[in-house]
Amino acid sequence: MNLDEAVLGRRSIRKYQRKEVPDSVVRELLDLARRAPSSMNGQPWRFIVIRKAEIKRQIVAIKNKYCPTEKLAFKADFLKDAPVIIVVCVDRSRSFEREVENAVLAGAYILLAAHSRGLGGVYMSAYRAGEEGIDGEFRELLGIPAGVDPVTMIPLGYPDETPGPKDLVPLDEVVSLETFSE
Amino acid sequence: MNLDEAVLGRRSIRKYQRKEVPDSVVRELLDLARRAPSSMNGQPWRFIVIRKAEIKRQIVAIKNKYCPTEKLAFKADFLKDAPVIIVVCVDRSRSFEREVENAVLAGAYILLAAHSRGLGGVYMSAYRAGEEGIDGEFRELLGIPAGVDPVTMIPLGYPDETPGPKDLVPLDEVVSLETFSE
Repeated sequence: MNLDEAVLGRRSIRKYQRKEVPDSVVRELLDLARRAPSSMNGQPWRFIVIRKAEIKRQIVAIKNKYCPTEKLAFKADFLKDAPVIIVVCVDRSRSFEREVENAVLAGAYILLAAHSRGLGGVYMSAYRAGEEGIDGEFRELLGIPAGVDPVTMIPLGYPDETPGPKDLVPLDEVVSLETFSE
Repeated sequence: MNLDEAVLGRRSIRKYQRKEVPDSVVRELLDLARRAPSSMNGQPWRFIVIRKAEIKRQIVAIKNKYCPTEKLAFKADFLKDAPVIIVVCVDRSRSFEREVENAVLAGAYILLAAHSRGLGGVYMSAYRAGEEGIDGEFRELLGIPAGVDPVTMIPLGYPDETPGPKDLVPLDEVVSLETFSE
């Protein structure tokens, strides 16, 4: 798929068909994700591919337990119906204090590459600054060691919803030249 | 350009031809960038497009002044020769505590869309956690108000270098199934 088409067509998808996502496709996504830029070319990514129902169920429980009040409209229950969840972690010994940046760059690649293959997904965070509870519970569930940070988790599946058009903030309102303007 | 080709071909480019990047192309990049996912669809991005030599010169001075020792091999001097620099900021009132995530997602889109149009760029940060000096100096230089955070700056131009092939960490070393494995 053309890059512009992928960007224009990708939407956040939270409902999935009961159709497996082949291992070969997941592998393609991860192979592309590791081509993202990384600080000092450290390539610090560690990916966890989750398909087991019991682990998904526990992820839902942890996400909902720590969901901020203002985001309660987006409960995490749908994650249990995602055929696969990719957790993007970062090895701090190779990420030069840019754990979030490195993980998110790979996450953006996964979302676009997934869409280009007919898959849908949604960007979700696997940590919350200042909230050690969620961090600790994910680490225990997924066996993530202290030197590695879970940053994002991306559920993927063949879409079972077609979101309507998105209202975009007008470009002229968000672009300024040379210096910031209101 | 095909999405996979864009991902496979994109490299970090720090040398640029003396050839202007048309406004129309910059606008295309920003139009695509604002299609990135954002927390609660807040679309919190604010983009600053910089072309003036004097502003670039001051950006170089600030970046070099606060460059961490371990990154001194990548001095920021090349920024002054970039025809255009896009600074991606985030309005905190619309970003739900995910300033970095929202900015980086848009940044990844800019880098891929730039490559697909024959441009080269490199991901750079516009802040450093715990370092108020760099944050304050960028805010003053670019007139960025307190409620808006500068997160990344992406210099762009037509490439005047062709990086050699990149050594990638083997995929099997960085992928694990269900739980983390060393």
